Order: sequence, then structure tokens, then C-alpha cells
Amino acid sequence: MQNATLFTRVRPAGGEMTSVLVRDGRIHALGGPAPQGVPVVDGGGALLLPGLIDAHAHLDKTLYGMPWYRNEVGPRLIDRIENERAARRELGLDPCRQAARQIVMSIADGTSHIRSHVDVDTDLGLAAIEGVMRAREQYRDAIDVEIVAFPQSGLLIRPGTLELMDEALRMGAEVVGGLDPAGMDRDPKGHLDALFGLAERHGKPIDIHLHEAAELGAFTMQLTIDRVLALGMQGKVTLSHAFCLGMPDTQAVQALANGLLEAGIRIVTTGSASRPVPSVARLHAAGVTVGTGNDGMRDTWGPYGKPDMLERAMLVGLRNNFRRDDELELALHTATYGNARVMGLKDYGLAPGCHADFVLVDAETVPEAIVARPQRKLVVKRGQIVARDGQALAKAP
Amino acid sequence: MQNATLFTRVRPAGGEMTSVLVRDGRIHALGGPAPQGVPVVDGGGALLLPGLIDAHAHLDKTLYGMPWYRNEVGPRLIDRIENERAARRELGLDPCRQAARQIVMSIADGTSHIRSHVDVDTDLGLAAIEGVMRAREQYRDAIDVEIVAFPQSGLLIRPGTLELMDEALRMGAEVVGGLDPAGMDRDPKGHLDALFGLAERHGKPIDIHLHEAAELGAFTMQLTIDRVLALGMQGKVTLSHAFCLGMPDTQAVQALANGLLEAGIRIVTTGSASRPVPSVARLHAAGVTVGTGNDGMRDTWGPYGKPDMLERAMLVGLRNNFRRDDELELALHTATYGNARVMGLKDYGLAPGCHADFVLVDAETVPEAIVARPQRKLVVKRGQIVARDGQALAKAP
Repeated sequence: MQNATLFTRVRPAGGEMTSVLVRDGRIHALGGPAPQGVPVVDGGGALLLPGLIDAHAHLDKTLYGMPWYRNEVGPRLIDRIENERAARRELGLDPCRQAARQIVMSIADGTSHIRSHVDVDTDLGLAAIEGVMRAREQYRDAIDVEIVAFPQSGLLIRPGTLELMDEALRMGAEVVGGLDPAGMDRDPKGHLDALFGLAERHGKPIDIHLHEAAELGAFTMQLTIDRVLALGMQGKVTLSHAFCLGMPDTQAVQALANGLLEAGIRIVTTGSASRPVPSVARLHAAGVTVGTGNDGMRDTWGPYGKPDMLERAMLVGLRNNFRRDDELELALHTATYGNARVMGLKDYGLAPGCHADFVLVDAETVPEAIVARPQRKLVVKRGQIVARDGQALAKAP
Repeated sequence: MQNATLFTRVRPAGGEMTSVLVRDGRIHALGGPAPQGVPVVDGGGALLLPGLIDAHAHLDKTLYGMPWYRNEVGPRLIDRIENERAARRELGLDPCRQAARQIVMSIADGTSHIRSHVDVDTDLGLAAIEGVMRAREQYRDAIDVEIVAFPQSGLLIRPGTLELMDEALRMGAEVVGGLDPAGMDRDPKGHLDALFGLAERHGKPIDIHLHEAAELGAFTMQLTIDRVLALGMQGKVTLSHAFCLGMPDTQAVQALANGLLEAGIRIVTTGSASRPVPSVARLHAAGVTVGTGNDGMRDTWGPYGKPDMLERAMLVGLRNNFRRDDELELALHTATYGNARVMGLKDYGLAPGCHADFVLVDAETVPEAIVARPQRKLVVKRGQIVARDGQALAKAP
């Protein structure tokens, strides 16, 4: 058998010990007799998880590998946005180099796919988009990176940004990004007109950062639901953060959840500990797809964060007061199958026929993997080993 | 110079490189010329922190080192308490062995002091108290453990518990524990009568778990403040969790903070991500001492937690939306100087004359140590090395 490898003694999602036969980059079979002449990798009884997915990253922003950045930034969203635009120049932040660093750390932590928002603004132009595109090309055999053209400094309030967004999408950015249609652009209808116009022109999906709180966020969310239904864009829109779904009015939240389901809108939560957040369990029960991501890490916004999606699942679990094993499995689901739906991935998972993207960790159960966050023992991308014992085989700049 | 060691090339709290001369278990001098004939330990430029303190642990409960516990427990506090009483027997949980395991992990993570609540109830009697006492005796050269006699299953509602508490304090438990005077015992005045009675009889301080939310918790907190002032018990009482201080009515919270300051009541927060929590910054600004602790870890209540107080500082920082460097330094303060005040420790810190309890970590700054949580390079207790490269020198059972 050509182009094949047999991974023995692995426990899919903590179940019975079995083996995984990989062929031509896909999972060929689970269990069954070992074919002749196929190289064997001993999994040593490790837990087998599908490749982890970070569905909300900012690869162009991280300061990892640079000197410590002393954060003295003011408390408002606009303080952080303006500070970042200035700091990017002062620090000499190179989006390609920084994206490469985070990508390599992500590979080491078992991430097989990243959706990264990448800044587009009239200061920066398309430099960050180009930089992240170069970085992803360099590591394309080890990880898949999807790019969202993201108007971090506003879309309508900064003339020229819309044209840059259009160009970023023409260059190959896969997703149209948006940001607080009311809170940032002060024109929710206008912002949505612009985003859905770009999406239609380029035939691409949308992912909007929606920090707007409570009733304001609910208003924008309902506008978005209505727009999706009117345009038949079901399944093509993601709302990230969606703090408004954490508001106290649970009846209003339930009505929004029904609308999200009807419109096929996906929610991505980071499980922020300091903001109201969507209830993963309630949305999941309502049939709404929930994914998760690490968001910015070690950047001018804040010093927290590692590329580890098991740690993210833990933080989502803590925020949602998940304690039972089935609840922790749902936390991991956001970082695996939930995110696969957010990104529209085909053939994702551990079944025969799926891409052979998987991770081995020494843990007895899925919840133990989440709370203990052990070093990744082995990371496999399309059948090839890309990291071992917490170290990516590819090097960072 | 006898009984002395010189630790060179260390950076106290991330400042200028210096050396620390330790003699007879205390910090003798920072900087200055190296005395003749004193053994030298090279700090390699690491960040120097005072010994970390876990001021809210449950050493008798952890399941670390035991098979994975599948959690299928119901959602109420009483479900968890009743499940634990049953599980303790079914699992054969040995309080001494389990405390020893967590103690050794804590030493490895740079913890120099632990305040542990230890269950006292009519099923268990004093077995957990005795077990934790044996464990702490075994590791007394590497870590200080203080014991709170804790009526986990209620005090007045389980006749016989008060007598057991009295006996635990007679045996040497250092602190009188309490639990939700209204929510658990359904008799806030009676519960406080009992606790303050024990405290007076034994001349010992009090530490009450106060989960009671919002206005109910505020009522109990005010009763406690009034009691402390009436009895002249200022500086002798700690309230752990104190979720009521996270309630939306900020004017009521400010009034409580003023009362806490007047009564010298300390607050210990875990920075719970799923409950309203006290604002560390607001309490600190009001002059109230705030400490922190890891609370239960890997037990029948929930699977989360490591003994790492840098990780706890990170979780406190995330919950309080701390982003600036000075804010993260305050998060660490809760786990160091704040906790030292909670526990009433004398001669704690990095100044000459203090006990030589300290930790070295490879990090540029205090905030980096918190967010990166690197393996502890060296842990020193009363001048002796007790852990190196993330491993305690003492062994766990």
C-alpha cells in the first residue's frame, strides 16, 4: 500500500484502543488488520482528537517573539484601536513574520485550521493581508489558514477602506469581515449594505465582530438575521463575540437564537471572562452552531493567550460553568466540529474518508485533555507528522 | 559565613539584576559584595518573585493521581455537597495521600504557603483534619500549610458538627471556617454566633465561604461586619468568594467595601468566570485587602485547576479585564502580598529580614510570568532549594 501510514494504539475521543490507517492524506480505516509493508507509528495509548481549529485569530497582530510590550493603554475600544495603529509602526511589527510565529506555535499545539481576521485600513493598506498570505503559503503543508479581510479601524468612517476591502477579497481573502455596525461605523444599515455588497460581488461569506452589548447588539443582530433571510444567504454568515446573547433578558435571547437558527448564522465565542457571553449550552440546544477561537494573543490589546485550543476549550468551559464530562465534551466540540461548520470545512473528523488531520495527547478522557492541556504528543496534517512532543517540525522566523 | 547561600543574577519583580544573600533561612541582603566562602547559585537572569501563596485550597478533596472521575453531578450546590460525601467513600479518597499529592505539586509551582479549608462533618468526623495534618507535617520543611476547620455540610443543620469543629480547633486547626450562614444553615445569626463563639474560645481567626448572591450575600456580609465591629475582631475575619460584591448595585457595593475596610475584613476571590465576582481593582482602591486562591481542583466538584498560582493570577486578571501591566501586577499582588495579609504572615517578601521564600521564573516582566506561566526554574523555602525546573525535590505518594 503506497502513501500510507498506520497509527496504532490510539483511543478516538477517549474510547476503545484502535488503529488508524491513513492513505493519501485521508483516514482510510479505523481498526482492522494491519496491511503489509505500511510504516507504523505507535500512538502509545494516547487520546486521539481531530485537528483543533482556531476559528477566530488575529495572526497579523501578535507580538510573540518580540520584546515585552508594556501596556499602558486606556480602557475604551477606540483607545485600543488607535493605540494599535500607532504601535504597529513604532514597534516595527512585521505581519508576515508575526503570523509565521503564531502559525508555528499553533501547529505545535495541534491546530489544523485557522480563520484569521487580518486588518485592512487606510494607514496599513493591504500590507497585513499580503504578509499573512506569504506566511500561510510558507506553512501550507502543515496548516490551513483562511483570511478574513477585517476593517479594524472602521469601514464607512474611514473613506477608502471599502475599496481596500474589495481589493483584499480580489487578492484571495476568503471572508468579508465586519465590525460593530452601530458601535463603530455609527450606521448599522450602511455597514451591512457594504458587507453584503462585497459578499455578493465576490461570492464569499461574512464574519462580523459584534461587541455591541445587550439591546444595541440585539438590534444589530436582528438586522443581520433579516438581511440574511431577505438575501437567501443562509449558512454564509458568522457573528463573532455576540456579547448581546449574554444579556439578562433570556426571552429576547431565545428569540434571537431562533432567528440565528433560521438564518443559519454561526456564533463564535471566546468565552470572555469579563464580558457577558453567549451560553454555549443554550445555543447548542437551540440548534445554533457555536465555534470558538483564541482571538488576539500577546498583542497591544492585551498580554494573554496561547495558541492552544485545548486551553481555549477550558476557558469556554470555565465561563459556561461546565463541570460534567458531557459539558466539557461540548466545550471541545466548539473547537472541533463546531468550528468546522463555522469554516465550512468538508471531510473533517475522524471517520474514514476524512482528511487525516489529528492530534494525539496523553490523557485518559476528553475532559482531562481540556483541563490538563498536556503537551501534544503528535500532530498529523493530511497524513504527515507536523509536530512531535510539543514542537513543530517547521521552524519559525 | 555559615548557613548562607548567594543567589546571583536575579531580577526582583522584573527590576535590575542583583543578587540575594540568604542566611539562616532569611534574606540577609540584596546586592552588595559577595561574601567569602558562601555557596553560589546562579539565577541566570530570571525574574525573582516572593513565594506564591494559595490562600484558598481544599487539600483533602483533590483526585489528582487517581483514575479520571466521570462527573455527572446535578447543578445545585447541595447536589455537589451530597455527591461528594458519597463519592469520598466510594472512591476511597484518602485525605492524607491526596493532600500530599497536591502539596508536592504546589511546591513544584513555587507555592510557599497554603491556607486549606478541610472538611469537618458528622460522616467524616476529624479524619480529613488528621490526614491533612499528617501530610503537612511530612512536607513542613518545604511549605507552610494552615488548616481551616470547614463545616462543608453545614454547621447548625447537622447536629454534632459544632462539637467536631471545636475538637478540630483544639487539635491545632488554625482557623474557624464557615459556610453560607443564610444559604446553607438557614440561620445567619445562629451561624455567626457559633463561629464567633469558637473563635473567641480558641483565640483564632475566621474564614467564611460566602457564596450567597447579591442582596442575600450583602445582608450576611453586613451582619458579619457589624459583628466584627461589636466584638473588636478587626483584622481577624476573611470572607472567601464574596460573590455579592459582584452585584450590579455599585453604591451598595461601595458601602460594603467601606464596612469591610473599617472591620479589617479580607476578601479572597478565585476570579470565578461564571459567577459575579468582587472587583479586585475597586476593593484595592477602597483599601480592602484582596487575596486569591485556587479553590478545589480536580475533585468531585469539577475537573479544572492546577496548583499554579501564576495561572490563578491570570484567571483573576482575565475575569477583571486587567490588560495593562500595572493591572497584572495587582493580579499577582493578590497571590503574594494580599494573601500574606489574609494569612497574617510576618516577614513576608523580598526585603532584608524576610523569610527566604522565593521563586525564580524565566520571564522578562511580572505580567509575562502571569500570562506565560513558565515552569518554575527554582523554588526556595527558608533558604533551601525545594524545587527545580518544575519538579519538587520531595516525592509524592
